Amino acid sequence: MIVSHISDVEKEKVEMEGVEGVWIQWLIAKKDGAENYAMRLFTLEKGGKIPIHQHPWEHEIFVLEGQGVIGAGEEEKEVKAGNFAYVEPEIPHWYRNTGDGDWKFLCVIPIKE
Amino acid sequence: MIVSHISDVEKEKVEMEGVEGVWIQWLIAKKDGAENYAMRLFTLEKGGKIPIHQHPWEHEIFVLEGQGVIGAGEEEKEVKAGNFAYVEPEIPHWYRNTGDGDWKFLCVIPIKE
Repeated sequence: MIVSHISDVEKEKVEMEGVEGVWIQWLIAKKDGAENYAMRLFTLEKGGKIPIHQHPWEHEIFVLEGQGVIGAGEEEKEVKAGNFAYVEPEIPHWYRNTGDGDWKFLCVIPIKE
Repeated sequence: MIVSHISDVEKEKVEMEGVEGVWIQWLIAKKDGAENYAMRLFTLEKGGKIPIHQHPWEHEIFVLEGQGVIGAGEEEKEVKAGNFAYVEPEIPHWYRNTGDGDWKFLCVIPIKE
C-alpha cells in the first residue's frame, strides 16, 4: 500500500498554449504501480483557465474546493465542492476558475501503453 | 458530459459480513458510459468498519473528510482529508473509522467485463 498526502506531492506548472495559472500534482500514477488509471489533482488559481482541447481519453472529475466552469461540447456547467463530472473521450472541453480563490479538482484518466 | 453532485446520488447500505455502518454512492460508473474505471464515494459512520477482505482489483482512494485507518498487508495507516492511497490488487485490506463523525473517501476501481 502507498499512502501519502497532497501537501507532500510536487506541484508542476502546466505549460500549454492558452493555459493560465494551472498546476498539476500526480497523486497516483504508473510510478506507484498503478496500471489502469491515474489520479491527478489540478489547482487553477484565481482567473486560471485551460482552453478548449480534446483527446481520445475520458476524464472522471471530482471537485474538492473553489468554483469554476467545466465546458464540454455545447454546454458549460458551474461546479463547486461535491460536484463530479464525466467528460467523454474525444469531446472538446475547457475549464475556467470563476471564484475568488483556488479551484481544486481531482481528475482521473486511463493509463494506456 | 455528465455533471452531478454527491447530494443527488442515492446512498446504498453496504451489506457484507462484518461490515458495520458503511454506505456507498456510485458517482461515475458503467451506467454513465464509463468503460475503464468507476468512482464511488464511501461513508463510514462513527464506529463504522469494513473487515479484512481481498480481490483481484486495485483501489485508488482519496480522503475527503473525517479520519480513519486503512490497513493493507502488514500495515495500518491513519488518514484524514487530503490523504490518498493506492491499494494493490490481491492485497488483504480493511478500513476503520477512528474519528468522532463520518469518514468519507472516494474509491476508484477498474471496470472489467
